[in-house]
Amino acid sequence: MRHTKVKDLLNSTTTLQEINAKGWVRTFRNNQFIALNDGSTINNIQCVVDFENTPEETLKRITTSAAVSVTGDLVESKGAGQKYEIQVKRIEILGDSDAEKFPIQPKKHSLEFLRENAHLRVRTNAFGAIMRVRSVLSFAVHQYFQEKGFVYVNTPIITGTDAEGAGEMFKVTTLPSENAPKNEEGNVDFKQDFFGKETCLTVSGQLVAETYAMALGQVYTFGPTFRAENSNTSRHLAEFWMIEPEVAFNDLTDNMDLAEDFIKYVVKYAVDHCGDDLKFLEGRLTEEEKSKPQAERSEMPLLEKLGFVIENNFKRVSYTEAIDILRDSTPNKKKKFNYIINEWGADLQSEHERYLVEKHFKCPVILFDYPANIKAFYMRLNEDGKTVRAMDILFPGIGEIVGGSQREERFDVLVEKMRVLGIDEEELWWYLDTRRFGSAVHSGFGLGFERLVLFVTGMTNIRDVIPFPRTPGSAEF
Amino acid sequence: MRHTKVKDLLNSTTTLQEINAKGWVRTFRNNQFIALNDGSTINNIQCVVDFENTPEETLKRITTSAAVSVTGDLVESKGAGQKYEIQVKRIEILGDSDAEKFPIQPKKHSLEFLRENAHLRVRTNAFGAIMRVRSVLSFAVHQYFQEKGFVYVNTPIITGTDAEGAGEMFKVTTLPSENAPKNEEGNVDFKQDFFGKETCLTVSGQLVAETYAMALGQVYTFGPTFRAENSNTSRHLAEFWMIEPEVAFNDLTDNMDLAEDFIKYVVKYAVDHCGDDLKFLEGRLTEEEKSKPQAERSEMPLLEKLGFVIENNFKRVSYTEAIDILRDSTPNKKKKFNYIINEWGADLQSEHERYLVEKHFKCPVILFDYPANIKAFYMRLNEDGKTVRAMDILFPGIGEIVGGSQREERFDVLVEKMRVLGIDEEELWWYLDTRRFGSAVHSGFGLGFERLVLFVTGMTNIRDVIPFPRTPGSAEF
Repeated sequence: MRHTKVKDLLNSTTTLQEINAKGWVRTFRNNQFIALNDGSTINNIQCVVDFENTPEETLKRITTSAAVSVTGDLVESKGAGQKYEIQVKRIEILGDSDAEKFPIQPKKHSLEFLRENAHLRVRTNAFGAIMRVRSVLSFAVHQYFQEKGFVYVNTPIITGTDAEGAGEMFKVTTLPSENAPKNEEGNVDFKQDFFGKETCLTVSGQLVAETYAMALGQVYTFGPTFRAENSNTSRHLAEFWMIEPEVAFNDLTDNMDLAEDFIKYVVKYAVDHCGDDLKFLEGRLTEEEKSKPQAERSEMPLLEKLGFVIENNFKRVSYTEAIDILRDSTPNKKKKFNYIINEWGADLQSEHERYLVEKHFKCPVILFDYPANIKAFYMRLNEDGKTVRAMDILFPGIGEIVGGSQREERFDVLVEKMRVLGIDEEELWWYLDTRRFGSAVHSGFGLGFERLVLFVTGMTNIRDVIPFPRTPGSAEF
Repeated sequence: MRHTKVKDLLNSTTTLQEINAKGWVRTFRNNQFIALNDGSTINNIQCVVDFENTPEETLKRITTSAAVSVTGDLVESKGAGQKYEIQVKRIEILGDSDAEKFPIQPKKHSLEFLRENAHLRVRTNAFGAIMRVRSVLSFAVHQYFQEKGFVYVNTPIITGTDAEGAGEMFKVTTLPSENAPKNEEGNVDFKQDFFGKETCLTVSGQLVAETYAMALGQVYTFGPTFRAENSNTSRHLAEFWMIEPEVAFNDLTDNMDLAEDFIKYVVKYAVDHCGDDLKFLEGRLTEEEKSKPQAERSEMPLLEKLGFVIENNFKRVSYTEAIDILRDSTPNKKKKFNYIINEWGADLQSEHERYLVEKHFKCPVILFDYPANIKAFYMRLNEDGKTVRAMDILFPGIGEIVGGSQREERFDVLVEKMRVLGIDEEELWWYLDTRRFGSAVHSGFGLGFERLVLFVTGMTNIRDVIPFPRTPGSAEF
């Protein structure tokens, strides 16, 4: 007999005869009421067991996280809290779950404990909700770009290019860890490695995406990227998913417009499609914040905050204006910042970004036109000769969520910059070809997907919004 | 001035005043007719230059692959082959392209040559079409699963598990290639490596996806996977994208139904959304096959072949039946197979799979119920004690496109199998937890995305359907 999903049963518009549901027991009360969940929704369906006519042996096996199959009628519920419930005629235990051994007890566990049980934490309301929201957000990303005619490009994960420029890289090899073969000079002979040379995991698909943008016009990537950085923070992962659109003929303003429109679309999509999950996560956040001092609590509940982002323009501020604001700010004058802003050219730290977003503007902020010497080699030099057409989007509670730029399309200027920075032209011959043959203004950005999921779910540690986080010292499961 | 995409201009229902288009020159004929392409469609728009009033200097710079911006009116075309063309009033050269140096000349290049210029090959009609079809197929994958309520799960790329069981793995490390730190026993001290242990690139997300299926019910992965195998064939890549759905409560028949329905959906989606590109690729294939002997040519043109797959049931055949067919086949009797099929239990080679699909059944075939000892440890043992609930889907011209199974849900049977095969229970403690706590029948499969793209585009080498292929000895760009 085909089972019906819990979500469909709960959304039924009539009572139903002889239906079957399968799922996992969340709770079993009074030897009678099963709260059954099958992952299709955060909501459980109440299954009423005829305990007088059910063998004691079976009743005992209805434990938290046991898998069961219930057959019966979908009837109007007499209890409060649900419209329908299942009047169970037959119950079958598909898989037992020893209540004493099952690690996730029906009580509040710490997020740290749940991370150690990442294979089971998804059986909780919170992580079920987070992972459904993550999935819906992923789909929204694809739908946004596909509707606009962008081509999805799978840029390589294993790369022979070490000039991607976005961070420290992991090495990929099939050579033995000990006694790797040596060449005549006595160095490790990478010619004998799988790819015949040294290879790494990509830190960004941008450079190759640019080659595709210069043919297909509008492209985007959405795939895993890697940073071998020893950052044990709540905002960094060694393996994370990044979205990188790249658009021919877009200048920096077009790029900012695209990023803002994109973020609003995907956040709205989540709000429209994940109502139950987000409502639960809003409650979770509110509850969590009760333990914080008043001053550190969010000013808005989760859904209001998401609505605020959807409905309001992001504030666009040049780096130069931002420096003026920061220099004159109270924490700067009172030397509360760890890094005091004295002059133009300083790199902004997250304390400064947070001040701008959370205290000064109180909305998402797009900073643009940064000093050239704190930004990457491929960014378009402005006519002033000292700033580049870079932009970062900063979000309250998250910090930088997007980093992008208009790209330097002028062959000579780009090559000169690479020489100054010691970037090998030979290695990037193919990248330079985009400027040799039919170059044009183009722009793009990178958005760290997990930071977006953090923002939308109201979670505070990035390890809680990816199924199995990879961080320094940890690659479990 | 905002430019309009070529696709939108070609689909216009009226003439238009004062429009702007930007793109790359495909050809320039008679000092007058530019075929302009911007990647939004395989079709070019004809731009008619008023050559008498355009400086000679500008006309000279209208070369293949130069980037140009043209402004003018969209008018009805006097020539054959297009409804509309642009009567150019102003032309600006955005980026020159030296016709003598541009590697891709307006002539037929070999696919091998184009692979060496993978950053530019996407500027050809064929590769533009392939990459647009690939993108649309990707979206169809997500849409299919999301519409059915599946949750997209990003399983880890870097894994500490070496028992995924699908093939040879790449090592991921930040230890120095020479003089890596040693422990007291004199071995490389992986405790000092980034993750504190040995890590590899994933060969399959299945095992972790199973943990999610046992909470969320229906999940799927779609991400890069890796095989460090020295397979220099037209069907293998070291880095490829794989789709792995996993569904709680599905048995092997449900699994076959899902796979067949899924494939038909995505192929139909491509046919419905990539008409122009597929028509071009059909012509390319027909042209290519003219150089082959009659017997080796496809029996159907590309679109007819795709229609055939969409409209016909896949033939479901047990391994045992397949062995009988093969044993009695002419190539077996005449000893034309390299591996002669004598008895039940033999592993099928691609020559056998091809015979079944291309000669015997002449349609996609699902083989199921394989001998246990030629399949992976996690497959559900049948009641006969010698076969497992495995299934492979074989496609004409492609071979195996899907491999899947019902999973062994019985803790004791699974552990016994792991012991026999020497698979470490300690390492897979979290996998075994799915059978300890609320186990249930469940099934899934893996589909190699590039093989699907091969099939739909009619290409014959898998290196031509991924932007930058990674193969033994090659990780360029």
